[in-house]
Amino acid sequence: MRESQLALIAEGRAWTFAALRAEAHRVAQRLAAFGVRPGDRVGMLLPNVPHAVFLIHAVQQLGAVLVPLNLRLTSAELLAQAQRVRLRCLVHNTATAPQASALAEIAPLLDIDAETPSAPFCAQKRTLEALHTLMFTSGTTGQPKAAMLTWGNHFWSAIASGWRLGVHPEDRWLLNLPLYHVGGLAIVLRAALYGIPIVLHSRFDPEMVLWALARDRVTILSLVPTMLKRLLDFNRDRPLPEHVRVVLVGGAATPAPLLARALEARVPVALTYGLTEAASQVATATPDQVRAQRNNGVGYPLRGVHVRIADADGAPLPPEALGEVWVRGPIVMRGYWDDPEATARTLTLDGWLRTGDLGYCDARGQLWVVQRRTDLIISGGENIYPAEVEAVLLQHPEVEAACVVGVEDAEWGQRVVALVQRVPGAAVRAEALQAFCRKRLAGYKCPRAVLFVDALPLTASGKVDRKAAQAWATQAIAEREAMQS
Amino acid sequence: MRESQLALIAEGRAWTFAALRAEAHRVAQRLAAFGVRPGDRVGMLLPNVPHAVFLIHAVQQLGAVLVPLNLRLTSAELLAQAQRVRLRCLVHNTATAPQASALAEIAPLLDIDAETPSAPFCAQKRTLEALHTLMFTSGTTGQPKAAMLTWGNHFWSAIASGWRLGVHPEDRWLLNLPLYHVGGLAIVLRAALYGIPIVLHSRFDPEMVLWALARDRVTILSLVPTMLKRLLDFNRDRPLPEHVRVVLVGGAATPAPLLARALEARVPVALTYGLTEAASQVATATPDQVRAQRNNGVGYPLRGVHVRIADADGAPLPPEALGEVWVRGPIVMRGYWDDPEATARTLTLDGWLRTGDLGYCDARGQLWVVQRRTDLIISGGENIYPAEVEAVLLQHPEVEAACVVGVEDAEWGQRVVALVQRVPGAAVRAEALQAFCRKRLAGYKCPRAVLFVDALPLTASGKVDRKAAQAWATQAIAEREAMQS
Repeated sequence: MRESQLALIAEGRAWTFAALRAEAHRVAQRLAAFGVRPGDRVGMLLPNVPHAVFLIHAVQQLGAVLVPLNLRLTSAELLAQAQRVRLRCLVHNTATAPQASALAEIAPLLDIDAETPSAPFCAQKRTLEALHTLMFTSGTTGQPKAAMLTWGNHFWSAIASGWRLGVHPEDRWLLNLPLYHVGGLAIVLRAALYGIPIVLHSRFDPEMVLWALARDRVTILSLVPTMLKRLLDFNRDRPLPEHVRVVLVGGAATPAPLLARALEARVPVALTYGLTEAASQVATATPDQVRAQRNNGVGYPLRGVHVRIADADGAPLPPEALGEVWVRGPIVMRGYWDDPEATARTLTLDGWLRTGDLGYCDARGQLWVVQRRTDLIISGGENIYPAEVEAVLLQHPEVEAACVVGVEDAEWGQRVVALVQRVPGAAVRAEALQAFCRKRLAGYKCPRAVLFVDALPLTASGKVDRKAAQAWATQAIAEREAMQS
Repeated sequence: MRESQLALIAEGRAWTFAALRAEAHRVAQRLAAFGVRPGDRVGMLLPNVPHAVFLIHAVQQLGAVLVPLNLRLTSAELLAQAQRVRLRCLVHNTATAPQASALAEIAPLLDIDAETPSAPFCAQKRTLEALHTLMFTSGTTGQPKAAMLTWGNHFWSAIASGWRLGVHPEDRWLLNLPLYHVGGLAIVLRAALYGIPIVLHSRFDPEMVLWALARDRVTILSLVPTMLKRLLDFNRDRPLPEHVRVVLVGGAATPAPLLARALEARVPVALTYGLTEAASQVATATPDQVRAQRNNGVGYPLRGVHVRIADADGAPLPPEALGEVWVRGPIVMRGYWDDPEATARTLTLDGWLRTGDLGYCDARGQLWVVQRRTDLIISGGENIYPAEVEAVLLQHPEVEAACVVGVEDAEWGQRVVALVQRVPGAAVRAEALQAFCRKRLAGYKCPRAVLFVDALPLTASGKVDRKAAQAWATQAIAEREAMQS
């Protein structure tokens, strides 16, 4: 019976599906006592703890809307997001209480580790159309935007992913991605639908991963390329246990040398391309396919998902032609919460999601993603939108202009570098600007280096030439490191 | 785009999903002109022709209920079924017109090969709860019973089957099982959901199968054991093309020597156990699993499906203990149409389906089906319920008592044999009784042999001892054949 099967393994304990349901019911009763009603937005400011999993299911039982919040944000960033979606309450625990306290003014706080009252509630029947999650993506404007994902988006994503990767009775999925990223949240929803256990880790740690593979008999894990590299390093390129059947790598392009190393170590890598606005995976190459092709194509779109490579006017391009990746199908979000303009820029009238990413399809219909949206920086699995960082830099009185770019980094994929043009006569130093950013931005968004320029490179049309800026920054960083070593 | 992808290959032609949808729409318009409304029952008396596939989708578009009728039934049998479900109309083609004419009195006939009027209709949104199919199973009483399958039953069956067997972008499913059996119908619904093409054959023919594997690049085929044997015979135990990744064998137990032969020929056999009342597959062992285990276990229940081995009182039995196979989950039918008594006998109040089949689960939870319901005879993939044949024999004035059993047959799995006790002084011959049956029963149900006995073997409680009867019949047939050869 499913009820007696394992649903969750975490912190040295285990919960069956019956126990998980009971825990979720208790959390739902506590939320009900806080006045949470169907359709209300419930903020989740929790690390990867069992309570987070219970909360995700509790919010579903109530028919409320889950709003996972990034733990790495500053108070100001969190406040902006909480205000944007008008939270009915914010759930935190002892560890996140200090961060939560900054939001006390705009949303009642529920400390999940404390004793709080319970109230009865009517369990809501989930419909596919019901709004399920508001998941923040920063977007190019630097304004927080919340992607509206329905239960149908998550449901179809889970089904189609299962068709692609298979669902085996002995599967166990390791979850060490943050639950405030779609890649982490999707594992919780998928596992519940498949009836398989999650092995929950508080964070990525290569030693803990190897332990979980061996002791907890994990069969599937989801990693970003940085994690894959660290896992291979730690494991000294030895093969993983035989029962590990899928290592799903996504969140950023996998560098060719890393992929070659992983295949050499017989790691069953599946490569995927996905994004928050499409409820995670869009296209996925199975381990068999990756092994056979030995390249970093991300395979066919999942079943039911359509990909178009579009030119600047949105017209479909033929195979092999490079263009913007557009996505359509039951996994595509309904739009951005309370932001019709951003929605209109991102979703076409006939349902296509404009990802901003560059790629092409080969003659057989497989997708190749050449470059994430030109301005996006991906560092250790986190997305950083330059506009957001630039907006903060421009708030500094001594900054005239700024351009933030990603510079290649062997460990993190990319690191954030700022090119800054000071106001005439100003002499602010890099350290001061970095400190200025740290007060206003999550740490992972802050520039690792600030390079001063007399003027930013411009394109013919007078816009900042990001490509030239990136090339210049890459060169400058390389020279600096050469001098240091 | 899905719309431009292949959906159906048949009779030397091909249809894309767009073309399939358009054809189905045209058939729906013709049904609408016949007055078919949502919820109406539409009989399908069609061989495996493209129009049958169009009709299945047309009935869905209308929100009507599909009633597939077995082409091998006699007029009297068809009449009983059509009356039972009160058909709004019966769809036939030129080939089945003679059979259909017998039903003209009780249902308007729509000749799909003729020109008939069209009328507009409102396409109905499918809900998971909506009744989708009435599929006849004869049952032990000999009375036709129609299993009520919802769209949700078929939907979950397709999803869970896809998770077990995988859904690959290059998949093509060969369909040569009759569409009036759940195993055939399920392929049509699955393929539409997966977005993969069906290769439709009018019947099983080993030479046509090999052609389709090679030329049409079929990757999956569904067979009953008799077909597997004939395919191996015809192909002289050579391997199938490499792109064939699943040969799904079900409908009856696969004899161990046949399985060994198939594995020797490297046929990727998947073994399944299913039944009409559960919308097809209940448990399925993947090709990898069958290859590794080399036995005829049918694997784990599909995801979301629960199997209990029950004792005579319905209490769950421990692993390895033999009992009745009970099934619960989203694939289980809603009940038998307009037959609350049969429904109550078959479905428990808490949703378990009592299959009547005998089996056990091993310690790992895999299912082993030892024997289909004791009285059921399976011959060449057709289910024959002895009670139905016995009821016909008893109508003959010179028959006092009869017991119909299945005797093992290398080609067909089982063949139908009748033990008959004549009324005192009667001298009716076997041939006369066989002719009597042929007039009243589909050919596959008629006894291949009639053996006369002075008295039927009885159990201690005075009921006919079917086991003893079968043993006696097996022995008698073997002796008769030894004498003949």
